[in-house]
Amino acid sequence: MNRRFIIILLLTIITNGACTDQAGQTGTFTVEDDGQWQKGVNTHRLSQFPRIHPDGRVWFRFEAPGTAMSVMLRIDGSAYEMQQDTSGLWNAVIPGTGPGFQIYSFIVDCTDMIDPGSRPFYVNGYVSALEYPAPDETWYLAKHVPHGDVREHWFYSDVTGSFRRMFVYTPPGYDQDTDTRYPVLYLQHGGGELENEWTHGGRANFILDNLIAEGKARPMLIVMNLGFATYPGQAGQALTGNARWSAFEEILVDEVIPDVDKYYRTMPDRQHRAMAGLSMGGGQTFNIGLKRLDVFSHLGFFSGVPANYEELLNGVLGQWPDFHQRVKLLWSGAGTEEERFIDRQEGLQEMLEEAGFEAHYYLSDGTAHEWQTWRRCLHEFAPLLFSD
Amino acid sequence: MNRRFIIILLLTIITNGACTDQAGQTGTFTVEDDGQWQKGVNTHRLSQFPRIHPDGRVWFRFEAPGTAMSVMLRIDGSAYEMQQDTSGLWNAVIPGTGPGFQIYSFIVDCTDMIDPGSRPFYVNGYVSALEYPAPDETWYLAKHVPHGDVREHWFYSDVTGSFRRMFVYTPPGYDQDTDTRYPVLYLQHGGGELENEWTHGGRANFILDNLIAEGKARPMLIVMNLGFATYPGQAGQALTGNARWSAFEEILVDEVIPDVDKYYRTMPDRQHRAMAGLSMGGGQTFNIGLKRLDVFSHLGFFSGVPANYEELLNGVLGQWPDFHQRVKLLWSGAGTEEERFIDRQEGLQEMLEEAGFEAHYYLSDGTAHEWQTWRRCLHEFAPLLFSD
Repeated sequence: MNRRFIIILLLTIITNGACTDQAGQTGTFTVEDDGQWQKGVNTHRLSQFPRIHPDGRVWFRFEAPGTAMSVMLRIDGSAYEMQQDTSGLWNAVIPGTGPGFQIYSFIVDCTDMIDPGSRPFYVNGYVSALEYPAPDETWYLAKHVPHGDVREHWFYSDVTGSFRRMFVYTPPGYDQDTDTRYPVLYLQHGGGELENEWTHGGRANFILDNLIAEGKARPMLIVMNLGFATYPGQAGQALTGNARWSAFEEILVDEVIPDVDKYYRTMPDRQHRAMAGLSMGGGQTFNIGLKRLDVFSHLGFFSGVPANYEELLNGVLGQWPDFHQRVKLLWSGAGTEEERFIDRQEGLQEMLEEAGFEAHYYLSDGTAHEWQTWRRCLHEFAPLLFSD
Repeated sequence: MNRRFIIILLLTIITNGACTDQAGQTGTFTVEDDGQWQKGVNTHRLSQFPRIHPDGRVWFRFEAPGTAMSVMLRIDGSAYEMQQDTSGLWNAVIPGTGPGFQIYSFIVDCTDMIDPGSRPFYVNGYVSALEYPAPDETWYLAKHVPHGDVREHWFYSDVTGSFRRMFVYTPPGYDQDTDTRYPVLYLQHGGGELENEWTHGGRANFILDNLIAEGKARPMLIVMNLGFATYPGQAGQALTGNARWSAFEEILVDEVIPDVDKYYRTMPDRQHRAMAGLSMGGGQTFNIGLKRLDVFSHLGFFSGVPANYEELLNGVLGQWPDFHQRVKLLWSGAGTEEERFIDRQEGLQEMLEEAGFEAHYYLSDGTAHEWQTWRRCLHEFAPLLFSD
């Protein structure tokens, strides 16, 4: 190897490795493959990685190496140097993560990439997510119970002047018991997600299938819509305050609900209509659902009590003198690792107690602003719905 | 700028640019933004690119630049150098592509990446795809017509010992006309896709919505299953010949069809059951559907007549003396740019003519082994189904 080549190589490593502590070394990675590594649930058909070991370790591999000089794995608040094996692929074995849905990425010479080997989810753009097992929480897994369908349902919105879609969970038996009508939960995603993520990253359908099979929740429809909407001409404008949600409120109340009541066998009255949402969707439930007590009777905020809850609630109490009779359930939940939302929901709880109203309050142990919190919220919330 | 820094810079450009003709130059990209550029249909909510101009040009931007030294765009058989603009983002404006679904990727310092700004599709792994307008072909767009639902339907397969899902298109009116029963098309993806791509990349639901609205196709269910399946213990084995499809045949005939006939209002007889597929799915239709004339009566091969069609057809003709009465429709189609499949379907056509059987034959003008071919195939094939 001549001297000029070595200089080029060294300089390339130095300049490319600028965003990492050190460049990878070829052929230094080894792991004992004892035959127990299993493909993760999000690992796609043509990929073998990430793999999870029964002892909890996770093995990531970056299968499209190009001429990368350094690759890092970023997951669950940590960053790991990936190492090349003798075939040139980049690898990392990590001890494990928190339970459930863990977003990760590969940083290839300082460029963030999703994992080509794993199914993408939408969280502020397309991301890779590891589904890390939580052995004590099997209530969100596909089980040997009757399964409802999740329907992609298209409609044209006159409010936005565009085609939109909603996802509609119909419970087991819906297509057989054709005389039965069902209550409806309108369930909203957060500011990072889209209308499909409650039944994708969130696993709402399996959560309900399991609750219904155990007799813990009443069979119901769940209707999931895109929470973003602007009037024609508004696109690109920075909207604040109530103006942010007014197009969505109009779509939800004047277009979606009539459409759902027309196409599906609903119980089309406010007593059998709930609204809940995570994060931004919780804020929308507070701003729209709680205000429209002519439309909804059960409300849930998952990491989603908004900052101005005091002002909003006072407005609602003033607007609806029969608030205590109209609201059948008012529920808030958050992860113990998300202080901001705990503070708000404690404040809300106090206000409601002072007003003589019994609200429900839940904390998800050890989780932050993430799907595991919201899956647990749905799992706690759904059994309390429509208990008449 | 000192001499050592210049040397480092030059050497880095030389080594990193090894897979491209030249490195990009910072700040050289400009395009006239005349306000007419529109987000592509696959451009996601938080992204503004790719954008399409009414004059046909497409503007790609790579929004996660890291410290990349060179970025190329690969699309529709061509590669384009991307150029950095003054804010450091990489851009390319291209004159246009073929119609429909065009797979593309960014090559960042020689590493292939999907576009973080665009919705991923599954084609041998997750890929980015531009939906390039085809002004004369609006029959696969969402229109102001009644829309059917697309249902994600989960079931447990005893054959594979795992949960699987199918997608089921139910036509407009399915939930209202609850006495009506419907014929069923079992529609298979190709070797690159998964069970969701016929209604995702393929737009099968919009194609049928439009045909039904125009009275050109009979309202029907479409059932789309994962075409890959192995018996427990077989995973990872290299299967050849008929053994490749035996687990899938068992799932389709013994599990899927009874499940569909139980959960949906089908016409549960062979006269009202079709099977079709693209590429590998066409081969499966030939290997399974054509053999199982006790189950199916209408068959379609989209770029999918298998290489051993002669042997297979002779077997079928020998097995079913009443072939001419049993087969109500035998249809094959391919793109004019895929010689291999044209040769096979011409051979098949000749064999059938010699046997005195009138088969249907279609060529998609100017398209290759791609979604636009298969969308057109479905659009031509569906009107011929279940015309009794």
